Amino acid sequence: MKKFMDEDFLLKNDVAKELYHKHSEGLPIFDYHCHLNPAEIAADTRFDNISALWLGTRTFGDHYKWRAMRSNGLTEQLDDPWEKFYSWAQTMENLYGNPLFHWTQLELKRYFGIDTVLTSKTAKAIYDECNRQLKENPELSVFGIFKKFNIYAVGTTDDPADSLEYHIQLKDKSPAKVIPSYRPDKAMNIDQETFVPYIATLSKASGIKIKSAEDVLKALENRLDFFVKCGCRASDHALMDAPYAPATEQELNAIFSRAMDGLTLTAEEAEKYRFYIMSNLGKAYAKRGLVMQLHFASIRNNNSRKFRQLGADTGYDAVYDSIHAEKLSKFLDSMEKEDLLPKTILYSLNPNDYYVLGTLMGCFQGEGVPGKIQLGSGWWFCDHKDGMEQQMKTLGDLGLLSRFIGMLTDSRSFLSYPRHEYFRRIMCNLIGTWVEDGEVPYDMDVLGKMTEGISFNNALAYFS
Amino acid sequence: MKKFMDEDFLLKNDVAKELYHKHSEGLPIFDYHCHLNPAEIAADTRFDNISALWLGTRTFGDHYKWRAMRSNGLTEQLDDPWEKFYSWAQTMENLYGNPLFHWTQLELKRYFGIDTVLTSKTAKAIYDECNRQLKENPELSVFGIFKKFNIYAVGTTDDPADSLEYHIQLKDKSPAKVIPSYRPDKAMNIDQETFVPYIATLSKASGIKIKSAEDVLKALENRLDFFVKCGCRASDHALMDAPYAPATEQELNAIFSRAMDGLTLTAEEAEKYRFYIMSNLGKAYAKRGLVMQLHFASIRNNNSRKFRQLGADTGYDAVYDSIHAEKLSKFLDSMEKEDLLPKTILYSLNPNDYYVLGTLMGCFQGEGVPGKIQLGSGWWFCDHKDGMEQQMKTLGDLGLLSRFIGMLTDSRSFLSYPRHEYFRRIMCNLIGTWVEDGEVPYDMDVLGKMTEGISFNNALAYFS
Amino acid sequence: MKKFMDEDFLLKNDVAKELYHKHSEGLPIFDYHCHLNPAEIAADTRFDNISALWLGTRTFGDHYKWRAMRSNGLTEQLDDPWEKFYSWAQTMENLYGNPLFHWTQLELKRYFGIDTVLTSKTAKAIYDECNRQLKENPELSVFGIFKKFNIYAVGTTDDPADSLEYHIQLKDKSPAKVIPSYRPDKAMNIDQETFVPYIATLSKASGIKIKSAEDVLKALENRLDFFVKCGCRASDHALMDAPYAPATEQELNAIFSRAMDGLTLTAEEAEKYRFYIMSNLGKAYAKRGLVMQLHFASIRNNNSRKFRQLGADTGYDAVYDSIHAEKLSKFLDSMEKEDLLPKTILYSLNPNDYYVLGTLMGCFQGEGVPGKIQLGSGWWFCDHKDGMEQQMKTLGDLGLLSRFIGMLTDSRSFLSYPRHEYFRRIMCNLIGTWVEDGEVPYDMDVLGKMTEGISFNNALAYFS
Repeated sequence: MKKFMDEDFLLKNDVAKELYHKHSEGLPIFDYHCHLNPAEIAADTRFDNISALWLGTRTFGDHYKWRAMRSNGLTEQLDDPWEKFYSWAQTMENLYGNPLFHWTQLELKRYFGIDTVLTSKTAKAIYDECNRQLKENPELSVFGIFKKFNIYAVGTTDDPADSLEYHIQLKDKSPAKVIPSYRPDKAMNIDQETFVPYIATLSKASGIKIKSAEDVLKALENRLDFFVKCGCRASDHALMDAPYAPATEQELNAIFSRAMDGLTLTAEEAEKYRFYIMSNLGKAYAKRGLVMQLHFASIRNNNSRKFRQLGADTGYDAVYDSIHAEKLSKFLDSMEKEDLLPKTILYSLNPNDYYVLGTLMGCFQGEGVPGKIQLGSGWWFCDHKDGMEQQMKTLGDLGLLSRFIGMLTDSRSFLSYPRHEYFRRIMCNLIGTWVEDGEVPYDMDVLGKMTEGISFNNALAYFS
Repeated sequence: MKKFMDEDFLLKNDVAKELYHKHSEGLPIFDYHCHLNPAEIAADTRFDNISALWLGTRTFGDHYKWRAMRSNGLTEQLDDPWEKFYSWAQTMENLYGNPLFHWTQLELKRYFGIDTVLTSKTAKAIYDECNRQLKENPELSVFGIFKKFNIYAVGTTDDPADSLEYHIQLKDKSPAKVIPSYRPDKAMNIDQETFVPYIATLSKASGIKIKSAEDVLKALENRLDFFVKCGCRASDHALMDAPYAPATEQELNAIFSRAMDGLTLTAEEAEKYRFYIMSNLGKAYAKRGLVMQLHFASIRNNNSRKFRQLGADTGYDAVYDSIHAEKLSKFLDSMEKEDLLPKTILYSLNPNDYYVLGTLMGCFQGEGVPGKIQLGSGWWFCDHKDGMEQQMKTLGDLGLLSRFIGMLTDSRSFLSYPRHEYFRRIMCNLIGTWVEDGEVPYDMDVLGKMTEGISFNNALAYFS
Repeated sequence: MKKFMDEDFLLKNDVAKELYHKHSEGLPIFDYHCHLNPAEIAADTRFDNISALWLGTRTFGDHYKWRAMRSNGLTEQLDDPWEKFYSWAQTMENLYGNPLFHWTQLELKRYFGIDTVLTSKTAKAIYDECNRQLKENPELSVFGIFKKFNIYAVGTTDDPADSLEYHIQLKDKSPAKVIPSYRPDKAMNIDQETFVPYIATLSKASGIKIKSAEDVLKALENRLDFFVKCGCRASDHALMDAPYAPATEQELNAIFSRAMDGLTLTAEEAEKYRFYIMSNLGKAYAKRGLVMQLHFASIRNNNSRKFRQLGADTGYDAVYDSIHAEKLSKFLDSMEKEDLLPKTILYSLNPNDYYVLGTLMGCFQGEGVPGKIQLGSGWWFCDHKDGMEQQMKTLGDLGLLSRFIGMLTDSRSFLSYPRHEYFRRIMCNLIGTWVEDGEVPYDMDVLGKMTEGISFNNALAYFS
């Protein structure tokens, strides 16, 4: 029996161990997509309570953990930090087989040096020790964590109207580069209540009067140039599926006006607008050498009662399904045919999509960039050992795993960096197993370069 | 080489063996969903011919086996019991890799003590021995089988209009609880020929005059109360996908009238009716603390020539595909928003649905019931080692495997109980492998409780 | 560590080795579906340059390899044979995990006796040695290759209007049977520009005046009879999904006329025509004892800029997604209900379809042919170790793996025969592992027959 979570955790053979310990473990982390709060980074924040850090509140906290506690049938009416922590410890006893179990134990180990398994019995001692260290250990501030985990850069997620004041402040101050990413979802979601007020915000931020869809685009490009000046290297979009619905200028103007008048749009009208904006933004990214990230297939706020009580991002989202090969093909082609398809990362929350994404991307590769179009790493509900292995095997089967830009946390928490370690171990084990099984040559020149590439170097080159 | 089907069958490591032999093998069986015939149970039936028991006839028998024999190209024009048995033996030689091979051998082993592999060469001896035992062995009556396999309870599948006379008879007589389950499919299928006559049957059984969709619901609730009195703990529904189509009372009345007049309904009209009934039945279940089972994604009677010859349930069904995240989300929410979503088990015949189901269920958990919404065990075409492992791994990755209520046979046969053994071995092997690989701690307090829970205790708590 | 690609490549246990070396390795190859050029076969062509043979040109060559080179970011503006080869060698260093890596090494090994791994460092020596052998080795002509690889038969892919002159020439000349297959895609694609001119070609070839859809069918049946005379045993169809749209004769005439007048058809109109032709051709196949091959779920020419530059089949195709259980069921039933469903192979480029295909086929089996309806081998983007294992496991779980007709190359290249070896090793390893794990008895009578069947005998029987 292999010891639980020892130094060779998840590494099942000698080549896997060699790859991890010699070609991956020591490399910096480029966490190119996350949801860290720039203000908290700029303040080099410290946290004095493990419950606040790990769980927060039901309305603002780690929605993965609250969701798991609910699945465990535990009451959510918890305010006391210790009670919340104890509820989490009870849930841990039911989490064998879930990535949260590994994440939690890796976080205890790497941030606090605690190897004890968290259960209801060990909860009190672990709670006290974590809280003691949070208060006393100088490494447990944001900058301390950046240094401890050898963070090269983090890519935050920012609204185009954002002033990026914290990014500017942080320029020469943070041990890790803090790079803004451009996420214009609010300008895209013409069918949501937030649209009309957001257009005003965007107009103000850009100094551009917005009277048409074209004006939205102008304002967005204005802000994009500002973002690029502040170091932005990538955009990010949350989409249920790919939009493709060409429209005339006249149609777009009519649609935009209807939306600004507060009228309800048809699904087709909203898609026409979205396609117009997305496709043109894509070309704008291409012109600036930026990466376009597309996150597909989430369906949000499924529980309307809880949405009214708790708001968004509280653990009530799920995987969406759609038929989208044809639309995605035409969407990508709308940029490619003008030779203006940017570097693109295709993520899907639904692993059923991997074959469509993994083969469509092969139709748009090239132009001198290795792995120009990427199949994004297993994301959110796919971010676990089985999901990562499926994503990497599929990428290998359909394309060039060796050119994969690897892991990102997508996290709101400063405690998530061990997820890179988790990913790297799984990746090294996958490749090492191929070697052990005689399916791939034991050529450390190639293997080492491949491992280092997926761990760090590919992302560095891709976003530079 | 591991010996075929020895005592450690499917258990590949020491922890798996420990989990199975110490924490699973000895526990009772709660077969909460099956299609056993209550009349046969009440009669404590004996069977004197293995062909009748295993194969029956083409129009009424084990459609899994007939289907396999057809795939093997064998003639179906068989009447003689021995010829049927021999045809099955020939098919067994072509079934390596199919669960029927394991089921057959496990049934021979556990019911008849026969370890010989069934082939065309061994067929005669096995046939004679089985028939001898069926006649002579007192354990091979229904009650004998219940005792031998330590059956705690079986959940039969019953029409709301059923008198439940056999369940009532059986109350203190059967060694296993025989619990009726409420399956109102005929009242839901407004677009089928069976609807109009069924409404008359339902009206008679309930004593309620049925003039509207609301009356159907009243009659169904009346019967539901009767079922509950007779010990019913769960309902069951066969659906291609989740209905969601809100309608006004006026619309519903018009739809119901059209159906009763024998007019053809549009797909949308039928869905409006189905949504109305399903959503309200769901709330009725919640009020009574019942479990709602939803079986999705089967497409039936695909071969019209054979359907005319042989009728339904003769081996001509298949896996259906649909886009249904959004509808299922809204369907569940229609009950949840009134705080009246019952305990629910989501089964799908299409494993592509697991990510949608496994994440949507996470949006509706809670209310003090651990694992309130369940991802149902691999069912029918998914009921094999690969399918079970996929279902359990997915559940682990997305939710709490530890709270899983485990296996059911869904079977028409009294010889299916070894499928619980089959499931338990696969489950213990999965968990044991995690421990052996150092992915989970060797903590027998947690592991034992988890294993016992999935084997029996979780179902017991869930249906109580 | 297992040695890379030794004689037990991919065979992880003793039973796997026994099955492969004693029951598979030595059997002939029935490559029942490929895209070899009959003219090149008839000429017993030799190739004097490994670049021409492996890569060809961007517009006419191995689109798998060009696609991989583009994914690796390499320039495509290559004319010099050595530069092309070197570019491929560089790509090989990034292909660990992709089947092209294995295919390339197996081709070097089996055709040229080269065990060296192709990298940028070894490229020159390998290039020179391959070119030397292509010139000097008498085995490296088409017929030489057929003999060397023990090719029993190849099934080419031919247009109904084809004269089959090379097949006729080859009748007693080739060491392998060269069997034409009937692929009437151009007569089906009524919504493409090629349709009108093709109807003229078909009319001329058949000597039948074509004024209606019925005439198209007559002309197609006329050519089909000619194909059968020339030894044809199978048809082949490329379809995005299954057509099902019954239409009256009047409707079909109107649709056909509109198409011949160059008018645009609706999707529904095109489907009505396609269903009419396909369903009737299916019955025509059944009457002649032919096999119908259906290739589903590819979406082609996704990159319109490259399509204009390079044309079709240059590496810009992808996996398509659709909802098709219901249509496929009705399409198959349209023939079955007249007892005229031919032997049918269902391929899908989208592995999400396997459960639908693998269960629907079970509804149409029988009529005295073991495995009458087949789940086609992992195809194109699914043609790799993971894909083959998934296809075989799924077939085993849902049906009779033992009746599987096995591998085909689908290749345009004479260097692809090691893919049968690759498949057979993977198949033997899968079955051998079941035996080693005690999941299947070590009964070499059954195992040997099963292995030999899937390797060669089943295809031989199926196409005879």
